[in-house]
Amino acid sequence: MTSPLFLHAVPGIPLVEPGDDIAALILAALASSELVLEDGDVLVLAQKIVSKAEGRYAYLNDIQASAEAVELAEQCDKDPRHMQVLLNESREIIRKRPGVVIVEHVLGYVHANAGIDRSNIDSDEDSPRLLLLPENPDHSAAELRSSLLASTGVNVNIIINDSAGRAWRNGTLGFAIATAGFEALENRVGEADLYGRPLEVTEVAVADELAAAASFMMGQGDEALPVVLIRGAKLRPSTAGSAALIRDREKDMFR
Amino acid sequence: MTSPLFLHAVPGIPLVEPGDDIAALILAALASSELVLEDGDVLVLAQKIVSKAEGRYAYLNDIQASAEAVELAEQCDKDPRHMQVLLNESREIIRKRPGVVIVEHVLGYVHANAGIDRSNIDSDEDSPRLLLLPENPDHSAAELRSSLLASTGVNVNIIINDSAGRAWRNGTLGFAIATAGFEALENRVGEADLYGRPLEVTEVAVADELAAAASFMMGQGDEALPVVLIRGAKLRPSTAGSAALIRDREKDMFR
Repeated sequence: MTSPLFLHAVPGIPLVEPGDDIAALILAALASSELVLEDGDVLVLAQKIVSKAEGRYAYLNDIQASAEAVELAEQCDKDPRHMQVLLNESREIIRKRPGVVIVEHVLGYVHANAGIDRSNIDSDEDSPRLLLLPENPDHSAAELRSSLLASTGVNVNIIINDSAGRAWRNGTLGFAIATAGFEALENRVGEADLYGRPLEVTEVAVADELAAAASFMMGQGDEALPVVLIRGAKLRPSTAGSAALIRDREKDMFR
Repeated sequence: MTSPLFLHAVPGIPLVEPGDDIAALILAALASSELVLEDGDVLVLAQKIVSKAEGRYAYLNDIQASAEAVELAEQCDKDPRHMQVLLNESREIIRKRPGVVIVEHVLGYVHANAGIDRSNIDSDEDSPRLLLLPENPDHSAAELRSSLLASTGVNVNIIINDSAGRAWRNGTLGFAIATAGFEALENRVGEADLYGRPLEVTEVAVADELAAAASFMMGQGDEALPVVLIRGAKLRPSTAGSAALIRDREKDMFR
């Protein structure tokens, strides 16, 4: 019998502030829940807590909107300073219409609003702020993995996830903006199918499948649980991070 | 503490043949594994076994390719009869290039090759065949749910999943082509975030998140496990099926 997969939303993660040690917060929360990390576990972290720990805030009162940002704000019915922040975080605008701007983020993700959050941010009305993606999410994931290995001796895998809308389908879905410890994209070229012929499917986005599952557990709003422990996932070790999940622009038919 | 989510790939599902009673096959496999269905469980079925039970084969030797199919086959480097089957299953071709045809399926999904499978089909070289999606997957899911309720008295939720490539990102990902018993798309308009302000995110594709998780468990090739039992998912009851997951063509920016 194959082993089951367990997903556990870790309770007791406090609201995260800039400079917080995420590894320590996770270990304390796990200890309170009598959960003990094991080799091969996957910890999935919501992007927001990584960004908050890294202090990735942009304060709108500090932003000077360019002419381009003012024009984009008019087209999309948004705050010009917000659009300036979005332009700073983006390589290219893919689609825009009132209420929606979909961009290629500087990190390569095609993402609505460049992954910039306003919900679940304690944004003082006198000093409104936005929360950006981590500066180098794969690096953040690798650092967390190293830190947990140093303090516990356990080899865990890390996913940082975010949720986003998609082409063609309604609703948001969790996806991986970073990974550490395992192959994010599994290449299955050459494996035989049940009848011995080569599989047509060649690459499986296992990190995104696990990120989506964790997103289901994290919930939203007052049920927010930003860390999910996954146990039982058979993954292939890798130090490569998550870059393989992003399709090269020249191979992308949907720009 | 929140309850964990448990995913179990059900062993012992035999190769499925046209006319097979999927409910009976699942119950027999569960019994062999000493797994007992509980109210609220989710059973995720790979599309292939539903299609096989429904005999959704197309035999290429029976197909007469139209001029349109011949032209498409030349453009995409495919068998003209295969392209005829694809055209029969599709409303519109979204993108085409050598080796790839992405269509709007008659059921509304945007899907490479109209979801038509050649892998994991026992396709005799003298009489090659393709496996199409179920004719009405939501109906198939609802029937299975009813059948399991009748024979066990247990209310389970059903997902039929398939895997597909995506815009912008590499690798395939499981998604729901059908649901029964629960809200596939959860509308979270009006729920407050951690700081009491309205959430920006409004709709979550919970069925796709669970379909992706199950797809991870199903594996591919000789590890194929076409049925996954998910326990512990908090879902909202609904009889509406999966149609809400499909974005209306006029709201879709990526055609």
